[in-house]
Amino acid sequence: MRVDGRQANETRTITIERNYIKHAEGSVLISVGDTKVICTATVEDKVPPFLRNSGTGWITAEYGMLPRSTGTRNQRESSRGKVGGRTMEIQRLIGRALRAVVNLKALGEKTLWLDCDVIQADGGTRTASITGAFVALADALYKQVEKGSLNQLPITDFLAAVSVGIVSNQAVLDLNYQEDSAAEVDMNIVMTGAGRFVELQGTGEEATFSMDELHQMLDLGKIGNENWIALQKEVLGPEISNLIAKNALQNA
Amino acid sequence: MRVDGRQANETRTITIERNYIKHAEGSVLISVGDTKVICTATVEDKVPPFLRNSGTGWITAEYGMLPRSTGTRNQRESSRGKVGGRTMEIQRLIGRALRAVVNLKALGEKTLWLDCDVIQADGGTRTASITGAFVALADALYKQVEKGSLNQLPITDFLAAVSVGIVSNQAVLDLNYQEDSAAEVDMNIVMTGAGRFVELQGTGEEATFSMDELHQMLDLGKIGNENWIALQKEVLGPEISNLIAKNALQNA
Amino acid sequence: MRVDGRQANETRTITIERNYIKHAEGSVLISVGDTKVICTATVEDKVPPFLRNSGTGWITAEYGMLPRSTGTRNQRESSRGKVGGRTMEIQRLIGRALRAVVNLKALGEKTLWLDCDVIQADGGTRTASITGAFVALADALYKQVEKGSLNQLPITDFLAAVSVGIVSNQAVLDLNYQEDSAAEVDMNIVMTGAGRFVELQGTGEEATFSMDELHQMLDLGKIGNENWIALQKEVLGPEISNLIAKNALQNA
Amino acid sequence: MRVDGRQANETRTITIERNYIKHAEGSVLISVGDTKVICTATVEDKVPPFLRNSGTGWITAEYGMLPRSTGTRNQRESSRGKVGGRTMEIQRLIGRALRAVVNLKALGEKTLWLDCDVIQADGGTRTASITGAFVALADALYKQVEKGSLNQLPITDFLAAVSVGIVSNQAVLDLNYQEDSAAEVDMNIVMTGAGRFVELQGTGEEATFSMDELHQMLDLGKIGNENWIALQKEVLGPEISNLIAKNALQNA
Amino acid sequence: MRVDGRQANETRTITIERNYIKHAEGSVLISVGDTKVICTATVEDKVPPFLRNSGTGWITAEYGMLPRSTGTRNQRESSRGKVGGRTMEIQRLIGRALRAVVNLKALGEKTLWLDCDVIQADGGTRTASITGAFVALADALYKQVEKGSLNQLPITDFLAAVSVGIVSNQAVLDLNYQEDSAAEVDMNIVMTGAGRFVELQGTGEEATFSMDELHQMLDLGKIGNENWIALQKEVLGPEISNLIAKNALQNA
Amino acid sequence: MRVDGRQANETRTITIERNYIKHAEGSVLISVGDTKVICTATVEDKVPPFLRNSGTGWITAEYGMLPRSTGTRNQRESSRGKVGGRTMEIQRLIGRALRAVVNLKALGEKTLWLDCDVIQADGGTRTASITGAFVALADALYKQVEKGSLNQLPITDFLAAVSVGIVSNQAVLDLNYQEDSAAEVDMNIVMTGAGRFVELQGTGEEATFSMDELHQMLDLGKIGNENWIALQKEVLGPEISNLIAKNALQNA
Repeated sequence: MRVDGRQANETRTITIERNYIKHAEGSVLISVGDTKVICTATVEDKVPPFLRNSGTGWITAEYGMLPRSTGTRNQRESSRGKVGGRTMEIQRLIGRALRAVVNLKALGEKTLWLDCDVIQADGGTRTASITGAFVALADALYKQVEKGSLNQLPITDFLAAVSVGIVSNQAVLDLNYQEDSAAEVDMNIVMTGAGRFVELQGTGEEATFSMDELHQMLDLGKIGNENWIALQKEVLGPEISNLIAKNALQNA
Repeated sequence: MRVDGRQANETRTITIERNYIKHAEGSVLISVGDTKVICTATVEDKVPPFLRNSGTGWITAEYGMLPRSTGTRNQRESSRGKVGGRTMEIQRLIGRALRAVVNLKALGEKTLWLDCDVIQADGGTRTASITGAFVALADALYKQVEKGSLNQLPITDFLAAVSVGIVSNQAVLDLNYQEDSAAEVDMNIVMTGAGRFVELQGTGEEATFSMDELHQMLDLGKIGNENWIALQKEVLGPEISNLIAKNALQNA
Repeated sequence: MRVDGRQANETRTITIERNYIKHAEGSVLISVGDTKVICTATVEDKVPPFLRNSGTGWITAEYGMLPRSTGTRNQRESSRGKVGGRTMEIQRLIGRALRAVVNLKALGEKTLWLDCDVIQADGGTRTASITGAFVALADALYKQVEKGSLNQLPITDFLAAVSVGIVSNQAVLDLNYQEDSAAEVDMNIVMTGAGRFVELQGTGEEATFSMDELHQMLDLGKIGNENWIALQKEVLGPEISNLIAKNALQNA
Repeated sequence: MRVDGRQANETRTITIERNYIKHAEGSVLISVGDTKVICTATVEDKVPPFLRNSGTGWITAEYGMLPRSTGTRNQRESSRGKVGGRTMEIQRLIGRALRAVVNLKALGEKTLWLDCDVIQADGGTRTASITGAFVALADALYKQVEKGSLNQLPITDFLAAVSVGIVSNQAVLDLNYQEDSAAEVDMNIVMTGAGRFVELQGTGEEATFSMDELHQMLDLGKIGNENWIALQKEVLGPEISNLIAKNALQNA
Repeated sequence: MRVDGRQANETRTITIERNYIKHAEGSVLISVGDTKVICTATVEDKVPPFLRNSGTGWITAEYGMLPRSTGTRNQRESSRGKVGGRTMEIQRLIGRALRAVVNLKALGEKTLWLDCDVIQADGGTRTASITGAFVALADALYKQVEKGSLNQLPITDFLAAVSVGIVSNQAVLDLNYQEDSAAEVDMNIVMTGAGRFVELQGTGEEATFSMDELHQMLDLGKIGNENWIALQKEVLGPEISNLIAKNALQNA
Repeated sequence: MRVDGRQANETRTITIERNYIKHAEGSVLISVGDTKVICTATVEDKVPPFLRNSGTGWITAEYGMLPRSTGTRNQRESSRGKVGGRTMEIQRLIGRALRAVVNLKALGEKTLWLDCDVIQADGGTRTASITGAFVALADALYKQVEKGSLNQLPITDFLAAVSVGIVSNQAVLDLNYQEDSAAEVDMNIVMTGAGRFVELQGTGEEATFSMDELHQMLDLGKIGNENWIALQKEVLGPEISNLIAKNALQNA
């Protein structure tokens, strides 16, 4: 039995509220338990220098936490004058993950900016960010199709992420902050709708793990990501979801 | 008739949702029309160096905008590596305004951090920040009284802020973004429950204004601030509001 | 009676020395009591990106203090690696104020840089900066007319600024440092030759002020600004002053 | 057959030269094919603020590349004024990995700084850094034992790291730069002498991977790490290696 | 004959105005031709960390140029967020030079800050800064003797600096900006009243120089520094000058 | 007799290993006693803005020290977020020195980047950097001649640098770290193959020096630079050395 009464293979309650910020092309408020992240997707009609005149688009992400999203106040990175290592690591992960399910060639010379801002944190902010950002991205790209600036939706599959870990020698799914702080091993798993891995990041926190423990965690990750992709489909509705599913089939 | 159908002396709809972020000692989501700001208050048991061993407390504020709170995406100040001039100006204003209604001596050697983060912007973000931050601050300080770390609530009066301006030669109250962009004159008025001025900042935007126009704007500011202080009282409830009102009477 | 023997409605001695720095298109040393500021105006034949191809010019200001312009040494902002909030606030104010009396359309795609560097500070450095910068700007623009790069002087009126405040419950004009440190209320008033407001910034310093006190301060501000604009006229001489006065009449 | 003639399960030639820098407590030059990294270990008799008076030590790493370690010159991070995201990610990884095989409690309030500076890069710089840093760390800690400032060697097991990946649909071990640039999947595997995982970071580069491919890569990673740990033992010599092996047995 | 009519061995007109800034312990405005520098000396009752509890004092210098001290406007180093290489080089030189003529042990645990701010530049700003800073320093230290916080004046000799160079194959003294821009060789010479060298910095500007040319420049440097030290004596007056001269004799 | 047994006029053992880094157009590892510096030369086909369309090339240098190249660990300048004054001074010196022996007009619109990274420091790192960078530069430029992107080798003479100083009242050549720390006077001398000065930087370290001492140091500097230029010739081999020698003769 876990600290919040869940089973080892149970995720927390997750909700995704679409169209949360009126200005953005795509935006959601995702809540995973007490973790709440605003994800917005912005479409920009240019690409970074290294892609100019390549015909290829780009996806990049930025991540932030409000100072009091956490139990004690964090100093703003703008006040410190630099973006910290943890933030860099997370925003690079989010961008990389989403690029894996978008056909950048079909996107053309556009950049998608995904901004994930944690307004309340309780563990799993990076996986919530990826899971929420996917929905914001789908909305933003679908709008480009509707207004004719894209011929087809360049999303090749669904994408979600979940954390798993070893806490008190037991593999558990979707760790909250209290569990995360005590975990011996912490792993983030990003998967597609087809069940393929996009990113695996497993870390022994001053500890190590065996092949057997790895498999237990991978099994839990599969359960979590399948649940969340099911929710993404429901939230996005049949029209968008069917388009993505069709693309995924063609890529299989 | 204004762009959104309001009368010149009419404010937008305002709501204040208390206890919005579970970790903070005080927190609200304030919505003024489509402007939405999360205000949190954090109590820290130390003061900046210039106040050490003075027995006196301090209040400081920080302000931020999510990148996509606006019509086009703003680069993060953390990515640019510095806090911009507009942000500095606003956060200095918020801090100064709130210090005017707190007895810093009675607060003792504590610092109150007010974080105002705009998640959606449609004009008047600095005045919404002040108005919302006051409620977050009242909650945070009242909690200190409840838990015995303060003997009495060191708030000397209510405090709200509203913007007024001259748009198409007419004085109007509580400008939205469209009006603000077109305004000849823009003025922010911070007032107490007793109707005294805390801060007046009037700026001709490549324009100037007369004494007569100044008075029209001051009259509208009074209306706006009285309305919003009435809401603050309602939202905070009779227990806290009566304590503040009593303090205000004693200071009069 | 004030600390330096002045009446409440009396300003300090003010002098403006033109052509103080040989390289600049316009430059003055302005002294207001013991406050001394070097103001230079530089004309640059390009505009910031947001104005390119607009046919419109721009005016921007920067403000600095020598480390030992004050009673105790200030660390250089270059050494700290960033411009502080107070500096930002002041230089934004100076730029905004001067833009209000220049026809930016008539200026064409030029940028005017106003650099105000305090070499000795004794209160009122921002208002001295505005008052001095106006003269440097007039000289720099008049030189453009003389050398044929402007058809006419694009200055629409005179501009000066003065500080007023409430010290020991009395409204006083042109506060020196000692008064400023003790003031309950501090207000900067920027006015045109026609007596219209360009900027009003009144701040209760951990205090508040009434409508009646506001009026006393506005009355003093009018006296101060009229005096200083009279000096600007005298210093600039009849040729330039008459051109500005004529423009001001046409705009009235 | 791979571009440099190796088999899929073959690593490049690796050499580790101990005591490479005379000033450091531990230092090596590690060469993995054409990748060359100087790793130094510095012992400092204090810990970061969050560990003061905890009795516990700390290990932290920094990573850098000489500007011309790569095919085209990279701008120095010192000149750019900030450490990039990739550098942060790598140095956080190195520090985390080494903390997993050191008993920080037994280390006491000391900090170990591991500096990994790439002087020539040809793929796999982060795994070479970890593998080399382990030897530098072992030397530095053994010196503490010799001089009596530690009672015992607080290293709990050997540690090495290797990269694996999918290149042209084939799983390969120890990618050089040319392979890395073309890889569909890239994974870094950090393992202990006991064959347990410390860190797994697998990334689809605009691609995804299956459970089957994951296993192929894990198998190769095991081969690579076993080879390199064998070399570490040889290079460190029987005295130090036996101490570590004994510790590892006790921990099993 | 030189561009401004001087002989090869002639310096420009130099004036030193003492007590130029009322707040500083020592301050001068030094003019060397059209080069004008404000030098202030600040006494601080603490030393940098590396000298704490050593009983020894420190002297450090900072150098700046107003943006429009030069023919075209320079961006402020505070706006750029960093101090440039030329500034660093100059301020390190100024500090080093002055430390050579102060007995830091006799100064005790005090720091002297020398701020040299160029308000108008026409070549030779670093040598003018050193020559002027010496007078500001003498004043600041003499005040410490007068008020009893130093027992004796810890200045061991006079100190001045002058530039020499090779222009059109001729050695010349005290180059103005036009000469400096065209010089093949540029050398700054810092000397004591006793005629000893403190610092020699000779640089071929995409050129080289012979031993013979070096001697011609050293001879001119001697003339220049003797002239300027004579002026320093006159400006400081007999009381302070005699104290320094006496110290210099004892050190000889 | 010196601390390491050398005579006053004796240099340490020096070795220069060419082609040390495979990616760079020119690269050496230079060892002067225990001082070891990697110098690389990179050829870039563009010039800084101030030289565009001038037909003229540029040479610039950057200098760094690995954190543990010294007895105690230095914080990385990238972590501190800025390049320190000493580094700036040294890299400006290296660039200036090498520009003196390259015909920038004949180089054409190319930039040569010289990166000097100290991997082990024992005094004299800046003079070792210049001496080593010359060889890397010669290699890089000769490769341009070989591949036809330059018609002729634009190097006008050999170039080396050595430090001299006064230690315990005696002039000595090529100071190691221990001597450098104790030196009363420290001078760096950069000379050409023809024995002309390129740069002279002599500094009294809280001390001064006489004309006589200057001459003793210049004599030692000549010996040191002649020795090292002899080694450069030997290391570069007759083909390149003869080309440079021929150029030097023509320039004489």
